[in-house]
Amino acid sequence: MTEAKASLTPIVVFYPEGRCVEGRAGWTLLDAAQAAGVHLDSACGGQGTCGKCRVIIRLGEVDSRPSEHISGAEAEEGMVLACQSHVIGDVVAEVPAASQLGELQILIGGTETSAAAEVPLAQVAEVSLDPPSLDDPLADWERLARALGRALPDFETFSVDLDALRALPGAARAGQWRLRAAVADLAGSGQVFAIETARPGRPGYGVAVDIGTTTIAAHLVDLASGSAPNARACLNDQIAFGDDVISRIIAAAEPDGLRRLQQAVVRSVNSLVAQLADEQAIAPAEIVAIACAGNTTMTHLLLAVDPAAIRREPYVPAARAFPVLRAGEIGFDAHPAAPVYLAPCATSYVGGDTTAGVLATGMADVDELWLLVDLGTNGEIALGNRDWLTCCSCSAGPAFEGSGLRYGMHASLGAIERAEYLPDADRMLFSTIGGAKARGLCGSGLIDVLASLLEAGVVDRAGRIDLGFPSRRVRVREEQPEFVVVWGEEAGREDDIVLAEADIENLIRSKAAVYAGIAVLLESLGLRPPDLARLNVAGAFGNYLDVEHAVTIGLLPDIPLDKIRFVGNTSVAGARMALMSRAARARAQEIASRMTNFELSAVPAFMGQYVAGLFLPHTDLARFPSVAARVPSRSR
Amino acid sequence: MTEAKASLTPIVVFYPEGRCVEGRAGWTLLDAAQAAGVHLDSACGGQGTCGKCRVIIRLGEVDSRPSEHISGAEAEEGMVLACQSHVIGDVVAEVPAASQLGELQILIGGTETSAAAEVPLAQVAEVSLDPPSLDDPLADWERLARALGRALPDFETFSVDLDALRALPGAARAGQWRLRAAVADLAGSGQVFAIETARPGRPGYGVAVDIGTTTIAAHLVDLASGSAPNARACLNDQIAFGDDVISRIIAAAEPDGLRRLQQAVVRSVNSLVAQLADEQAIAPAEIVAIACAGNTTMTHLLLAVDPAAIRREPYVPAARAFPVLRAGEIGFDAHPAAPVYLAPCATSYVGGDTTAGVLATGMADVDELWLLVDLGTNGEIALGNRDWLTCCSCSAGPAFEGSGLRYGMHASLGAIERAEYLPDADRMLFSTIGGAKARGLCGSGLIDVLASLLEAGVVDRAGRIDLGFPSRRVRVREEQPEFVVVWGEEAGREDDIVLAEADIENLIRSKAAVYAGIAVLLESLGLRPPDLARLNVAGAFGNYLDVEHAVTIGLLPDIPLDKIRFVGNTSVAGARMALMSRAARARAQEIASRMTNFELSAVPAFMGQYVAGLFLPHTDLARFPSVAARVPSRSR
Repeated sequence: MTEAKASLTPIVVFYPEGRCVEGRAGWTLLDAAQAAGVHLDSACGGQGTCGKCRVIIRLGEVDSRPSEHISGAEAEEGMVLACQSHVIGDVVAEVPAASQLGELQILIGGTETSAAAEVPLAQVAEVSLDPPSLDDPLADWERLARALGRALPDFETFSVDLDALRALPGAARAGQWRLRAAVADLAGSGQVFAIETARPGRPGYGVAVDIGTTTIAAHLVDLASGSAPNARACLNDQIAFGDDVISRIIAAAEPDGLRRLQQAVVRSVNSLVAQLADEQAIAPAEIVAIACAGNTTMTHLLLAVDPAAIRREPYVPAARAFPVLRAGEIGFDAHPAAPVYLAPCATSYVGGDTTAGVLATGMADVDELWLLVDLGTNGEIALGNRDWLTCCSCSAGPAFEGSGLRYGMHASLGAIERAEYLPDADRMLFSTIGGAKARGLCGSGLIDVLASLLEAGVVDRAGRIDLGFPSRRVRVREEQPEFVVVWGEEAGREDDIVLAEADIENLIRSKAAVYAGIAVLLESLGLRPPDLARLNVAGAFGNYLDVEHAVTIGLLPDIPLDKIRFVGNTSVAGARMALMSRAARARAQEIASRMTNFELSAVPAFMGQYVAGLFLPHTDLARFPSVAARVPSRSR
Repeated sequence: MTEAKASLTPIVVFYPEGRCVEGRAGWTLLDAAQAAGVHLDSACGGQGTCGKCRVIIRLGEVDSRPSEHISGAEAEEGMVLACQSHVIGDVVAEVPAASQLGELQILIGGTETSAAAEVPLAQVAEVSLDPPSLDDPLADWERLARALGRALPDFETFSVDLDALRALPGAARAGQWRLRAAVADLAGSGQVFAIETARPGRPGYGVAVDIGTTTIAAHLVDLASGSAPNARACLNDQIAFGDDVISRIIAAAEPDGLRRLQQAVVRSVNSLVAQLADEQAIAPAEIVAIACAGNTTMTHLLLAVDPAAIRREPYVPAARAFPVLRAGEIGFDAHPAAPVYLAPCATSYVGGDTTAGVLATGMADVDELWLLVDLGTNGEIALGNRDWLTCCSCSAGPAFEGSGLRYGMHASLGAIERAEYLPDADRMLFSTIGGAKARGLCGSGLIDVLASLLEAGVVDRAGRIDLGFPSRRVRVREEQPEFVVVWGEEAGREDDIVLAEADIENLIRSKAAVYAGIAVLLESLGLRPPDLARLNVAGAFGNYLDVEHAVTIGLLPDIPLDKIRFVGNTSVAGARMALMSRAARARAQEIASRMTNFELSAVPAFMGQYVAGLFLPHTDLARFPSVAARVPSRSR
């Protein structure tokens, strides 16, 4: 990215989801769609042969190769194959429903998921019953179960909640035997938990939630199609009780602490659910299923189950696998009987969010060696393939979630999510989430800024700001060196958005912990970074993370960039799969069970690796040959 | 029974249960035990060969045959075989635990019940867990599930209620990993719903309830042994809303009616539960399982499910099979998460009480033709064997429960349950439940008195009292002929206990409805009473019903008396089996499903049969040859 390019950086907007992304040189629309989190059907992998990734250009132009899959009339309408169309300027592309792939299918991958097993956690069925007669005097419930058996053949048996049974006789007769039933998938049996008169055209919604220590993200999901019309994120209200899981566990031990912590996280989730429901104009009772993925402590606190033993040797949680609960038991604003699924945890410090991530990335199904790095308040690392899985946790701290940094923020509206410093012009190019005025820096923006400043020589390898650097952005305030990322007037605010030396120290400690974790885990198994076929980086970074910059600062090992993928929030993606698929729920249980724990703190080498990582990118530059070539020699 | 004999009638008391019965000529202790509802192990059926029915004579004497199964030392202690010991006078026999048979086993009979399938609806397990360590860092819940898997091998998987999970970490550590868990059998999975620190020696209790329209009976059951330390009965508080199911359904349609009816029956059950718990000195929370059997309307009202459609063509209930609920959902005073089982119903008018009766009598397992007559407020009749089952319902009214009769009462303390009128001495011999002062007549007493008066000629075949009969017991009060059963001074009360002509009419209408039901059901299938291998009479008659007298008044067909058995309250017996056995619960479901309904009201012959039955024993004496011989010729 140079200034010239940057000024021309095209924006690609995908309708109807409204997702935006800045185009990159050489990108096709398919690349842009992937970066934007828009899942186009592309069975051939972008070869132009399957003809499935059809989009309609509504505004702007693309450099498009003709295709036998697009008729003349279609081309006239603006239809192109996304994989055969290069981005050359701002463009608005409409994605027809037929070209959209449920995220689910992309993410599940593999061969084990059959359509028959795609039983959502709950679903809404509209059924028409034969009215009873003297010849067919079946009881109302058995009559409904008979009709449901035809409509939902994935269930062998059905049972019914008392409240639903109470509603049945009246609803059946008021609705002339046309009924709407909400059915949960409980242990393979269909548990009918809501019955009312038919109301066709309302699909029933679910919510997939990533319950992070710092940030909570939620997707509203149409349970009939699996599509997610909208998504939201917010801070976890538990932050008032401490930044990390240990301080939360300590707070939970205070009088009434457990209850207050539970109420805080439920309040946060409910605020997201309220926004999502509001945007979609649905009532909370139309939310009939909730799937949550969180780390082990977050999951305990959500249930108000005492997590105290998690932080005391031998570090055992109260549970790793959780029963399917009901929304009312937890206090979620949804149908009170809606089933609540909780992703199973592997260990006290590798939780349901990691299980969900392994599920969502498909690494439990591949033959090659894959690594997943999930950057939340804790960094969790999973390594393995279809044959084996191991995992570890490193206390990265919430720096990459923007927490603990003066202008850090989570990936929401106005967060700088991409940035590049142009030293010659003394300009900072940046883009914010939603294109709003800059409010602060989220994780991906922080990594971009730090990498830029390192490459520009503003920051040295020890993380110190060079006060002699010829830029008025470099200054000292309150006895601390800092760098102005965005001037106040530019952001329409009184104060400047800065990155201070203390913030950089914070980021370095975090990235050192993650890198040390990766290095020690690999070394303990006799492996090296080049052995990795894929390194997936996950985290609540919004839609974007520049993996090259992540390597530049030494967060990730220096392996070929085409092996590194930013895969977004895999915790919520996995929760969404669990929400939509019985097979995914079974898979998650299996993943959690077979993931063996690797205890970093038990390995003496870890502390050495951590300390060696407190440089940019690392004390040992030989480990980062590609970075060595980019970092100014004066700071080597 | 004559006066001379009567004055010598021996009393047999069984310890420790304290059950009393009046001995009959020729009875062995085993016969007496059966009549008293004391279930002695008698594998050989009373042949003296199995040596299992050992009892110890504490007071009095029996005429006992020596047995190779009783050693000299044992004989010295007073040990005898009950089947080889004839009652010759008052006797108190102690029943050692080893000789007691759970009622369950007697009643299940057949070959299909294996020990492995005897999984109670809920049970309490005390388990000792290996404390966690770094080498065995299993989560608390998985650790408990592992221990439960060893202790309760009948469950393949376990799940846990949220409240129980919340209690787990604290209880495990407070109790040094010795825990007490209450486990419900839900769909084959062990649902842990209560966890606390170990408390050995408390077995966990269940309650089996027969929810009758008029009377409610409950047994407290030790879930570890299946034994029932105590039992109680009371009136159903719903009586305030009407005597029969139709008036209850109408009352339920009133504003707030359903809720009030539900509260009434729950109040009644809770009063029994409180008595039972009090007698056994246990807390309500120690009651961890409840099994109920009631007719279809009673079951709906218990759940506050609208029964309105039951009384409107095509007469369909809201449900015939019910999910296992929790005590707290219904309002039972027990552990709030205790599972509540409801016996499945066959039709709108043949309910869970009949299903329980078929289960308890074992008629679904026999090759021969068996008939079950369950006399409650409605009379239900089931006919069949292992190959087929059919059933019908006849509105007998609550006369045999003592309801609607001036001195009628349900089978509780002070109810006259046996009686015989001696015309020559103008004396009434009688015995009351519990030996208390007479308070009124329960069903068996009413049948005895009516049969006696018919045989003595006090009452003629039309049910009229012969005012010319030479007894001062025959009199007219308030313009109505009546017969004094017990003089006030004899009963220690101001008023005399009488049977009035209106009471007799009431009894005749009830018995006519039952007899007509039996006759029409048999005739419709081309069968006659002699085709029956067994006629079981069930009902809330306490411990006794003189089946010969039941034939005398024309309630039951005139077949050889050895084919007729009084089998007690089979509804509560079946509920108790369901409480104790997974196989019994599965059987009950199968029985309810395969019992075909026979609609008496659709058969024109029914009304004719009913009218013909409005005589004692019947218009057509040829149907009752044995009775014809006993009834005085002047009233023929």
